[in-house]
Amino acid sequence: MTATDFIRRALLLALAAGGVAAAHGQGFDQAPQPGAPRPLAIAAPVEQRLPNGLRVVLAERRGVQLVTAELVVLAGSEVDPPGRAGLASMTAGLLTKGTRRHSATQLAQAAESLGGALDGGAGWHQSGVGITVTVPKLDAALALVSEVVQQPAFAPAELDRLRAQSLDELKVAYSQPGRLAALAAQRLLYGAGPYGHPAGGTPVSLTTITRADLVALHAARYRPDNAVLVLAGDLDAATALQLARRHFGRWQPPRGAPAAADLPPNAALPQVAAVLDMPQAGQAAVVVATPLPPLGADRATAAVMNSVLGGGFSSRLNQEIRIKRGLSYSAGSGLDARPDGGSLRAVIQTKNESAAEVVTLVQAELDRLATAPVGADELAARKATVIGDFSRSVETTAGLAAAVKGLIVAGRSPAELRTRIDALSAVSAEDVQRYAAAHLGQTGRRVVVAGAAARFAPAMREAQPGLVVVPSGRLDLDQGGGLLAP
Amino acid sequence: MTATDFIRRALLLALAAGGVAAAHGQGFDQAPQPGAPRPLAIAAPVEQRLPNGLRVVLAERRGVQLVTAELVVLAGSEVDPPGRAGLASMTAGLLTKGTRRHSATQLAQAAESLGGALDGGAGWHQSGVGITVTVPKLDAALALVSEVVQQPAFAPAELDRLRAQSLDELKVAYSQPGRLAALAAQRLLYGAGPYGHPAGGTPVSLTTITRADLVALHAARYRPDNAVLVLAGDLDAATALQLARRHFGRWQPPRGAPAAADLPPNAALPQVAAVLDMPQAGQAAVVVATPLPPLGADRATAAVMNSVLGGGFSSRLNQEIRIKRGLSYSAGSGLDARPDGGSLRAVIQTKNESAAEVVTLVQAELDRLATAPVGADELAARKATVIGDFSRSVETTAGLAAAVKGLIVAGRSPAELRTRIDALSAVSAEDVQRYAAAHLGQTGRRVVVAGAAARFAPAMREAQPGLVVVPSGRLDLDQGGGLLAP
Repeated sequence: MTATDFIRRALLLALAAGGVAAAHGQGFDQAPQPGAPRPLAIAAPVEQRLPNGLRVVLAERRGVQLVTAELVVLAGSEVDPPGRAGLASMTAGLLTKGTRRHSATQLAQAAESLGGALDGGAGWHQSGVGITVTVPKLDAALALVSEVVQQPAFAPAELDRLRAQSLDELKVAYSQPGRLAALAAQRLLYGAGPYGHPAGGTPVSLTTITRADLVALHAARYRPDNAVLVLAGDLDAATALQLARRHFGRWQPPRGAPAAADLPPNAALPQVAAVLDMPQAGQAAVVVATPLPPLGADRATAAVMNSVLGGGFSSRLNQEIRIKRGLSYSAGSGLDARPDGGSLRAVIQTKNESAAEVVTLVQAELDRLATAPVGADELAARKATVIGDFSRSVETTAGLAAAVKGLIVAGRSPAELRTRIDALSAVSAEDVQRYAAAHLGQTGRRVVVAGAAARFAPAMREAQPGLVVVPSGRLDLDQGGGLLAP
Repeated sequence: MTATDFIRRALLLALAAGGVAAAHGQGFDQAPQPGAPRPLAIAAPVEQRLPNGLRVVLAERRGVQLVTAELVVLAGSEVDPPGRAGLASMTAGLLTKGTRRHSATQLAQAAESLGGALDGGAGWHQSGVGITVTVPKLDAALALVSEVVQQPAFAPAELDRLRAQSLDELKVAYSQPGRLAALAAQRLLYGAGPYGHPAGGTPVSLTTITRADLVALHAARYRPDNAVLVLAGDLDAATALQLARRHFGRWQPPRGAPAAADLPPNAALPQVAAVLDMPQAGQAAVVVATPLPPLGADRATAAVMNSVLGGGFSSRLNQEIRIKRGLSYSAGSGLDARPDGGSLRAVIQTKNESAAEVVTLVQAELDRLATAPVGADELAARKATVIGDFSRSVETTAGLAAAVKGLIVAGRSPAELRTRIDALSAVSAEDVQRYAAAHLGQTGRRVVVAGAAARFAPAMREAQPGLVVVPSGRLDLDQGGGLLAP
């Protein structure tokens, strides 16, 4: 009897035993008890390596018809040179827009003929291209991925097109309090360090980037000994290796070892609270960000802590800010995990008049995590939520590949996927409190509110004596590493 | 040897035979030939019925750990009474916001304890609630779904909260040319008929809706003999029926048959082209919509036709408008399938100055579909794209349940899912041309452009003598069924 059969039979027996709980009328009578989570059938990913240094990681999933392939280069927006914010993102975005042999349209048509689409992009510490097709099309799909990664044309016309589009998108982003506040919070947390600039570029940097910049970044970072081919689907290790050899075996690394990770350190700005003044803004956006060390064995604890604070409807931020006080339609938090240290970020949209109150409420909830243990019921429910979210996230081969990639980029073993649910289940209230006490202290915390400053800055200043108010048009996300353009 | 094993072996053999195609360097040399699509392993959904009339449809998928349950009521925004646009949507949205026995927060916590979330909402001809959990939690999850569907409280405080939030969201929507143009195009296509109003409501209707309206709609439409329980996951038919009986067996239909589908007919407005003047708009949105008959056996043909026109990077609209002429970053089309007749809708963002040219280009592409056959290569690539999109869409249990629901709501057999790929593969160039000639004629076509009218209306008027220009603030999406508020 397989595990699945066992569960089906148990379910059937429970039903046959009669609907005791339902005797009071249909619906639920007792809050469901979060039970022991069911282990997810994730095979341990297998890692192999080509002679040229390319790592090949296979997450095998039997019986599914789709397969995802991602070629991941282990460098991303953190290597954008000073004044070239957005370079890694633009480089990856242009991979699929033409190679030495095929135009953007030919590449798109080829991918579509396989029933898939090439998807190129960059993040922190990663760049690359992925595609999801049926297993018989994988061979042809990898030929495409190989070509766009190794032989991009970076045609000037395509660069100009992407540049113009990105600049237009920035115009929209810079008019939104939420987007701008998040970028400013990142600057406060990381200063002039490699994480301190917008990964999507700035209006200044995007106009400065040249084709030579793209070519140089590609030459330095896109090399087999700095890359990983991630495959997820119904494939065995021998086939994966053969396919990798066929399509990437003759990819030669340039002489010399890959550029060392000689990144300057991130260093928070001295300002702990800033207001971005947008006098016309109808609503304010509040961002409270706290730096976290790189997530290692404590990844599960951080995930549960975030869920208690701001993950979902019954999270504390939503309950305190939205449900009890009606100050927002959307109050939540998220983990921004970056290999050299990420952050926990609470983000709330609220009326301008309520912004100062919301800041105080968020601060109190951060403090509470460190000073009082999470109740048993609350903890169990939050863990069930995180486990459920994780289970759904790896339901597709693309989701599975993304999870594997995330671990590789973080320098962790992809095998952690198999034990993720166990690790989440094991998180205790003491773990959460200890982690919060160690990392959510007030000294690291940074607050940014973007909105009509006249309506909330005076109230904020009482709690934040060092508050700086910056006209949003003078916010500097470019060179200097400060907040204000000179 | 299973089909999967067969394919794996074939792939291995092909690889062992040596990389002939790759001898010229890594990458692809010939455009991949779209081959015979691989049949998707979708079991034929099984339909059963409870004595109270509830249909129970199971899409069984063995070996997966998640299961999706959706309780679908077969009535939606088309039954919004005159002046009550948004009523069905609000009714469904409030189901999960409190029952006679539990508050919104208690319901959310209960769902989160199961690792899932209750998701309520309405569309055209459908309302309901869904949840995705692991199989052992299905019993408890169905207790929740049963309670929120049968015993919603429609608490005044929750209604007011949702109303305020919806009104705020409308403010944003009405400031966006794309959203407004789509709503106006819908009004032109359907007039005062049941499809002619915004499903999300209008600023006037949302303030008018009362709790009594919600209660009345719920009493009239939410009844077991007007509903379907859709289950997708690793479950057998006997278990599905037992679970349905346990949680929905005592749901009694009110006396009398469900309200007949006595909807008035949709009737297009006489205006064939309208401009919504938004003098401050930085960009214009162009919508060209053509009514289609209800999709039946020709669903696959319509899907392929849409893909040729505007589905993806190498579609004709993207090639002609974006790639060749650089007039847009986003040019595409979509099928809006509604049971009583949907539409094909092309949507393009462009500069105000280019709007008239874009309208002409779209019209020409619609005409071309009817007057010339699609080339063999293009057709094969577009079919592969549609098949790939479909395959990815049913990769999750939630996607599978949504596909089953779509067929049920359209009055089609859920068994069509099994043959969807065959049907798509069989579409010929003649099919597409014949369908386009029959349904994309110029008489039914409606054009709406929202943007700074002074910069494109004069040019548009040359091609569209009957053009009406409406200040966007005077657009009437409420009662009258016309375009202009009185």
